[in-house]
Amino acid sequence: MARTLHLALSAYGVGGPGQHGLWKDPRVPNNASVDINYYIRQAQTAEQALFDAYFIVDSQFINAGYPAHYLSRLEPLTLLSAVATHTRHIGLIGTASSTYNSPFNLARRFASLDHISGGRAGWNVVTSFDTGTSRNYGLDEHLDYGTRYGRALEAVEVVRGLWDSYEPDAFPADVERNLFLDPTKLHALDHVGEHFKVAGPLNLDRSPQGQPVIFQAGVSEEGRTLAAHVAEGIYAPGGSLAESQDYYADIKRRAAALGRDPDHVVILVGASPVVAATDADAHRLSRDIFEADNDFDRKLGFLGRSFGAYDFSGHDLDAPFPDLAHLAEKGGRTRGLEIVRQARDEGLTLRQVVETVTEYAPSPFTGAPDTVVDAIEQWFTTGAADGLNLRFRTHDDLERFVADVVPSLQKRGLFRTEYTGDTLRDNLGLPIPVNRYARERETAAAQA
Amino acid sequence: MARTLHLALSAYGVGGPGQHGLWKDPRVPNNASVDINYYIRQAQTAEQALFDAYFIVDSQFINAGYPAHYLSRLEPLTLLSAVATHTRHIGLIGTASSTYNSPFNLARRFASLDHISGGRAGWNVVTSFDTGTSRNYGLDEHLDYGTRYGRALEAVEVVRGLWDSYEPDAFPADVERNLFLDPTKLHALDHVGEHFKVAGPLNLDRSPQGQPVIFQAGVSEEGRTLAAHVAEGIYAPGGSLAESQDYYADIKRRAAALGRDPDHVVILVGASPVVAATDADAHRLSRDIFEADNDFDRKLGFLGRSFGAYDFSGHDLDAPFPDLAHLAEKGGRTRGLEIVRQARDEGLTLRQVVETVTEYAPSPFTGAPDTVVDAIEQWFTTGAADGLNLRFRTHDDLERFVADVVPSLQKRGLFRTEYTGDTLRDNLGLPIPVNRYARERETAAAQA
Repeated sequence: MARTLHLALSAYGVGGPGQHGLWKDPRVPNNASVDINYYIRQAQTAEQALFDAYFIVDSQFINAGYPAHYLSRLEPLTLLSAVATHTRHIGLIGTASSTYNSPFNLARRFASLDHISGGRAGWNVVTSFDTGTSRNYGLDEHLDYGTRYGRALEAVEVVRGLWDSYEPDAFPADVERNLFLDPTKLHALDHVGEHFKVAGPLNLDRSPQGQPVIFQAGVSEEGRTLAAHVAEGIYAPGGSLAESQDYYADIKRRAAALGRDPDHVVILVGASPVVAATDADAHRLSRDIFEADNDFDRKLGFLGRSFGAYDFSGHDLDAPFPDLAHLAEKGGRTRGLEIVRQARDEGLTLRQVVETVTEYAPSPFTGAPDTVVDAIEQWFTTGAADGLNLRFRTHDDLERFVADVVPSLQKRGLFRTEYTGDTLRDNLGLPIPVNRYARERETAAAQA
Repeated sequence: MARTLHLALSAYGVGGPGQHGLWKDPRVPNNASVDINYYIRQAQTAEQALFDAYFIVDSQFINAGYPAHYLSRLEPLTLLSAVATHTRHIGLIGTASSTYNSPFNLARRFASLDHISGGRAGWNVVTSFDTGTSRNYGLDEHLDYGTRYGRALEAVEVVRGLWDSYEPDAFPADVERNLFLDPTKLHALDHVGEHFKVAGPLNLDRSPQGQPVIFQAGVSEEGRTLAAHVAEGIYAPGGSLAESQDYYADIKRRAAALGRDPDHVVILVGASPVVAATDADAHRLSRDIFEADNDFDRKLGFLGRSFGAYDFSGHDLDAPFPDLAHLAEKGGRTRGLEIVRQARDEGLTLRQVVETVTEYAPSPFTGAPDTVVDAIEQWFTTGAADGLNLRFRTHDDLERFVADVVPSLQKRGLFRTEYTGDTLRDNLGLPIPVNRYARERETAAAQA
């Protein structure tokens, strides 16, 4: 089968790059981030355009200095359950922290979403990087980086184990034999590991796609290792074409080295397209969006996110940038370490760092429709991406992309012209995982 | 204002008394307990009948001996979020354990459901009573009773504190002043208590009903204390009229003694009506339902739930009932202690205990429509209940109750003839809690 481009829509109205000043846009209601109908409409538009999935990012710590759309947001699983019954094909990927949720709760909630949606759930596994979040969960200090990633890997293993509690044909529901459940097909996990001890079984039948799809966004060394081990989809950071090619090759190589089929790790690069009638119009628009919200205090507040929600407000703006490598390291924020290195090498002040890291850099997907289509084709065909996780500012921008870009992608044979299945695994070309106990049973039968 | 009867529908298709053999009923699909449309239809029918709320019970531990509809069930918050966008007035009460969820997650998820539903969320606080559940969350032994209830009380306080993070008018969204948030109206909780340490603030704006409604089902001494302190609604156990009157008076008295308005603790008694053309028909039907699933092994398995999911299968059925008082006590299962006492006093064997505790006992709401209406009126007017939490076996039974009983309740002026508000608090006649920081502000202004 020919390789197919995958398109996900990252929900707008929640936080994210390029959306900081969104509340000032008269087209966006002030309560958009907590209005479920705002999300349902996005998901339905994306589904009409045959997108693979709808993606909900998350964060759990705020302070008054945070960008507007971080301040008040719906919790991803409740949000997606509501969206599920108003859509039929699009995948529903929710972000949840493996650091601040117990595996049994995670397994249950994602399996529940998977049933509610008829097999369209995905879990974007994050480890949560800031001290602010840890203080909402009883810890003074953030768990260190290695612990968080070790815990994440074990959490995914436990959750997958719980998702296998029931074999596919566990419920004969045979009235004559008075047999609802075949008791030999319900399995306790009895997991005992370094971080978790979980007995099981899960009190939820196997889902229509076997198991929800595991997403991850690994960038650091440990993040990439975790991704290579368990991710079936990746929300990749973007950057230049060359950077994306390097990242793509690295992840596929790591997965293959672990004996996995690299096609079963679908890499979606984060992209914020700006489409207009001409290339010049698009670049002008992109610049205007940047300038409209180019506020120093906001950027200063936001810089803290690269250092575990550090508060820069007490610092002298014109003194040398403080050495916060330990905070960046602890949070595992690759970006924070880069900033510290650059500031040291170039002798930058705090003010200069703020201006440098928030420098204007247009998206590679900025231009007239054909230009954007060309760029997507290039990224897809030169080993930079299996698809894009698209971020827009407003519904108008999504609709413009759907009207002007998607048909050309279809004409070039890059993107589907109809859904060929009902589950997220169908959309992404991922296999249905075989239940571990059913596999053991088959192996035993073959050997007998 | 005249006192109004409150009616909640307890979801069927999940576990509960009288529903053990439901899977054999040809009208009920075998996957009903995980079919979201099955629940949406129930909630919509209840809403058409002007019910106050839709109630989802929960359990988290299973084994192969459990009744069919315990085995595979949707998680309550994802379930209710899906139901929310298909209803407009009915309250949505979900069960969640304060023992196995962190307060920040609980606050977030219920506040999210509250926004999604436009102010109709309720949290039924449970502490989880069995060792089986604790082993799904990393504990070998169940937390003792006192710890669980102390933790529950503190959890509710923390969750309510987080729900107050934003004052009602925290978001001026003033473009001219470049002011989305008024930073003086966002508050960190900075809670440090015996069981929890939670900084806050919650990243979710105040909900349309101020805060979700707290439900509880306290029966034991500690349960009643917790209910008197924090519950705004109670799911009461039922029993005889006299038992219910005692319970009702006790809870209202305890609440008043704590300085609370007893009208702001709405007591809903669990009830399983059986309605037929005549009283005799209804009693025959009730008996048939009992006999159809009168299976000894199932009852033996179920008895274990009163003793922390204890497994009786290895015991000699004809030996004296074992002394399991310690297990009942630890689980805080009043019923378990009663069973032990009765078995000792009457010298019962295990087999005799099984037969005794599962003796046929028809619901007080069994009969022709007028008989059932009379019974409801009696319970409502003689201080036994502010309303009922209704359990049915199938959709037909709900529809029969709605068609034959609800109109008579309305004719007698007991039950509403239209919704007078949009929130669960409106339905239950509960006040909107004043935000604690807004109250402090007002107090300070009044003193100045």
